[in-house]
Amino acid sequence: MSYEPGHDPELHKSDDLKDRIWRIIFQSDTPGSKLFDILLMWAIGISVIIVMLESVESLDAAYHRFFFIVEWVFTILFTIEYAVRIWVVRKKRAYIFSFFGIIDLISIIPMYLTALLAETHYLLILRVLRLLRIFRVLKMARHIGEANHLLNALRSSWAKISVFIFCVVAVTMILGTMMYVVEGVIAKNEGFNNVPQSIYWAIVTISTVGYGDITPVTVPGKMLATVIILIGYGIIAVPTGIVTAELNARFAQVRMDSRACVECGLEGHDPKALYCKSCGTKL
Amino acid sequence: MSYEPGHDPELHKSDDLKDRIWRIIFQSDTPGSKLFDILLMWAIGISVIIVMLESVESLDAAYHRFFFIVEWVFTILFTIEYAVRIWVVRKKRAYIFSFFGIIDLISIIPMYLTALLAETHYLLILRVLRLLRIFRVLKMARHIGEANHLLNALRSSWAKISVFIFCVVAVTMILGTMMYVVEGVIAKNEGFNNVPQSIYWAIVTISTVGYGDITPVTVPGKMLATVIILIGYGIIAVPTGIVTAELNARFAQVRMDSRACVECGLEGHDPKALYCKSCGTKL
Amino acid sequence: MSYEPGHDPELHKSDDLKDRIWRIIFQSDTPGSKLFDILLMWAIGISVIIVMLESVESLDAAYHRFFFIVEWVFTILFTIEYAVRIWVVRKKRAYIFSFFGIIDLISIIPMYLTALLAETHYLLILRVLRLLRIFRVLKMARHIGEANHLLNALRSSWAKISVFIFCVVAVTMILGTMMYVVEGVIAKNEGFNNVPQSIYWAIVTISTVGYGDITPVTVPGKMLATVIILIGYGIIAVPTGIVTAELNARFAQVRMDSRACVECGLEGHDPKALYCKSCGTKL
Amino acid sequence: MSYEPGHDPELHKSDDLKDRIWRIIFQSDTPGSKLFDILLMWAIGISVIIVMLESVESLDAAYHRFFFIVEWVFTILFTIEYAVRIWVVRKKRAYIFSFFGIIDLISIIPMYLTALLAETHYLLILRVLRLLRIFRVLKMARHIGEANHLLNALRSSWAKISVFIFCVVAVTMILGTMMYVVEGVIAKNEGFNNVPQSIYWAIVTISTVGYGDITPVTVPGKMLATVIILIGYGIIAVPTGIVTAELNARFAQVRMDSRACVECGLEGHDPKALYCKSCGTKL
Repeated sequence: MSYEPGHDPELHKSDDLKDRIWRIIFQSDTPGSKLFDILLMWAIGISVIIVMLESVESLDAAYHRFFFIVEWVFTILFTIEYAVRIWVVRKKRAYIFSFFGIIDLISIIPMYLTALLAETHYLLILRVLRLLRIFRVLKMARHIGEANHLLNALRSSWAKISVFIFCVVAVTMILGTMMYVVEGVIAKNEGFNNVPQSIYWAIVTISTVGYGDITPVTVPGKMLATVIILIGYGIIAVPTGIVTAELNARFAQVRMDSRACVECGLEGHDPKALYCKSCGTKL
Repeated sequence: MSYEPGHDPELHKSDDLKDRIWRIIFQSDTPGSKLFDILLMWAIGISVIIVMLESVESLDAAYHRFFFIVEWVFTILFTIEYAVRIWVVRKKRAYIFSFFGIIDLISIIPMYLTALLAETHYLLILRVLRLLRIFRVLKMARHIGEANHLLNALRSSWAKISVFIFCVVAVTMILGTMMYVVEGVIAKNEGFNNVPQSIYWAIVTISTVGYGDITPVTVPGKMLATVIILIGYGIIAVPTGIVTAELNARFAQVRMDSRACVECGLEGHDPKALYCKSCGTKL
Repeated sequence: MSYEPGHDPELHKSDDLKDRIWRIIFQSDTPGSKLFDILLMWAIGISVIIVMLESVESLDAAYHRFFFIVEWVFTILFTIEYAVRIWVVRKKRAYIFSFFGIIDLISIIPMYLTALLAETHYLLILRVLRLLRIFRVLKMARHIGEANHLLNALRSSWAKISVFIFCVVAVTMILGTMMYVVEGVIAKNEGFNNVPQSIYWAIVTISTVGYGDITPVTVPGKMLATVIILIGYGIIAVPTGIVTAELNARFAQVRMDSRACVECGLEGHDPKALYCKSCGTKL
Repeated sequence: MSYEPGHDPELHKSDDLKDRIWRIIFQSDTPGSKLFDILLMWAIGISVIIVMLESVESLDAAYHRFFFIVEWVFTILFTIEYAVRIWVVRKKRAYIFSFFGIIDLISIIPMYLTALLAETHYLLILRVLRLLRIFRVLKMARHIGEANHLLNALRSSWAKISVFIFCVVAVTMILGTMMYVVEGVIAKNEGFNNVPQSIYWAIVTISTVGYGDITPVTVPGKMLATVIILIGYGIIAVPTGIVTAELNARFAQVRMDSRACVECGLEGHDPKALYCKSCGTKL
């Protein structure tokens, strides 16, 4: 784990049990740690499905007791996992305030809070609180190596994409307001009876989602909608272009050479290069 | 066929008829085998259309007898094809358990099973069973050369795309649960009356399908929906970027030349080049 | 025009008027021919709008006579244009059977046919026949230079895209049939009451159009729909990847050098090349 | 600002206050100008939200007076900003008729016009007029640096994309008319009761928006719809391909180096390279 750089197992041979547990929980290179990963994945998966099924009234009525027990079992298991993680980790503070540390905590507190609060009162708050357990799904992210590469590519394009999305929202505001005038003010179409609603419709349209709960009914409204659709069709390409160009650049980087110069040690040479581009030594 | 590497027609000149049939059925380089391919494609196409039309009640009532006869004709034809394939193939086991071998079997068994079972009972099971014949459409894949290239590109991106889809589903779970709180718990919107339903809605929205059977009705619900749509708009680009980068890399690989100049050692020459483009030495 | 290679104006100085008209109509390099292009574009645009407006019952009731006269004016104009084109063109047969020759003919015949047929009978056929005039919009394609580049890019990717679309349709057939079993046969959902309808729904879903006129209502149906949506989300990238890779290759070609070798005359050198890649001469 | 090339602060040291204000308003390199930018962004954001909320009848009824006062405060602030901009700018005419100059004016005039006109009359015109204030959102564009890069990429692809969109509209006209014949004329489907409506449907479909307010009901109509959807699926890739190829070319250009090796003449070195990668000569 990247937030655990100070933990060097070589230096702590004495604390053998703690070290072995650390290796099982935080690494995934031994059979034991792989088994732990798989069991944890299943526990997370089943526990998230329980959260989802509990919200279905008919299922909750029939299996309320079963869900309650299973949920407590998982909560206790995740509590043990959380406690052990804190115990074996050296930089405890770093772990507790790391992304995964917070997720691990959020995974267990809702059940304890529901036990503390009087069940008869605050029913709504309790229901919402217990839904927080859905965030357990993020515990899975720890075990998916490829996800990081994708998230990096997305993160490095995110600045450009968010500027782009801001521009789209700005365009949508103006087009939505025009639509409000044409459909809402003049034609009294209930779906466009205020500006925020019309902007909502414009975003649903320009992103090609197109629910159809609000649709233009007049001829000028339909013409304006056609214009918005065609604009959306023309610009939907932009985020794709940004991410693709980004990924292409990354692929090109990966394809770059792994040879290091014997003289100056520089890496990252062009695959076709014969001489080091930094010091001129033959590769 | 790739799963037939051991069958070398040169070594079996004696078994001439078997060899000629093998060539007609499994290859597509002679006029005979091309004709066989075309006839088989038509047979598959018509037989799949029959399966589809049979499910239309009005057509089934009017032409039940006709469909029944045509279906048996195709079943017998495909049975003969299957038997002959097994006969002429040398590695029989490899063929039978290959993808196409299983498809060839699935194409014929439903009709025999319907004949075996008493028609009066298990009507529902019979109807479903006979629909298995729709898998015949996959028999066509054998004859579409380009399909393999596409499937390869898709397969090599599939790991990345499935990780990406998993991430989208995880995000969708959290956003869907938030929507359930905002619309279902607080506003009592019937469409969001449990978490799985809300997640279904979030997937329909984030993928820009947007049926509109479930839509938010409250102002906070619409604001959250807008956020989900904009997230979907921003990340729909990612699978495209992955596949495009993959296809670009494949294209670039095809265009590359492995010759190096003897004088300056430059690689990456045009495949048609005769002289080094950098120093003019003959390649 | 590419289908007019044999017409060399230099050789026919005698037939001066015909040549001048040919230049105005078929070329667009003189002020006269540019004016002709613009006037023709406007005539096409207005005439297509007339076709569209005529189909609106309320407008047709109010302005039937006006539409009738305007339509005849355009028909006569286009007839004169067609006659003049045939007159000035040397390879008359090539023009008449060319794509644009046929479009020019289709643009005028419907009105003459409606005049010939007794208006009281065959009303439906007449209405449909007159709608053929909408094909006039294709006359515009002659004047849009860039359109050809795009169509070329699309055409060269079309083989791959159509194989891809065939695969999508095949997948859709199987998924649609599964949906028919889950929703139509078991849950008696009217929208999935036969296989072709279910396949129609699957295509609407996988392409992210998502009308919402047919939607799953059962839990297993919604789960299957989610799978179809996620498959669609994963593979929508493929045609984009194909076209992008194709366009990238074309762009790369355009960026290639315009220098020709003084010795062997070869063009298409790498922009960075110093020596001709074919004969080794310095560029 | 690019439309302010003649304003050289070095030459006007005497007019110190004017120059300092110019720097604060038009530049963003000093703490003062950065603070001004942030304050202006907030003012724009809040004022645009006020415009939107005013259109919601229930909110307008409750907070009419509050909105009225806040709106006048912003109008006066933006008027002062506009006046100061004109005062400090040297090329006043260039600023007034520039894109942002016009937006700055549109941001303030509606309120003055509503004060001038008798409130009792022309209520509709007044409401529409005041909605013009939504264009204030464009004032933000001045402060988003990245937006320009994106708009440049979009602008350079716009010619190709608009030709493409024109082609799509032309195809849509023909397919929409066919749909009008199949669904409107023959099956009397209300949604397809004239050609413009059918074309609107075809555009909604081909762009994958798919509202579902108009849907085919007959079997041939659904078959034609499937064809239109598959065409849309095949060509939605084209604008993406265009923008991506454009962005790729831009990325490649940025990464390129113009130095040539003195020994072998090779170009295209890495910008950080010190020695020729082909022959090892110092660059």
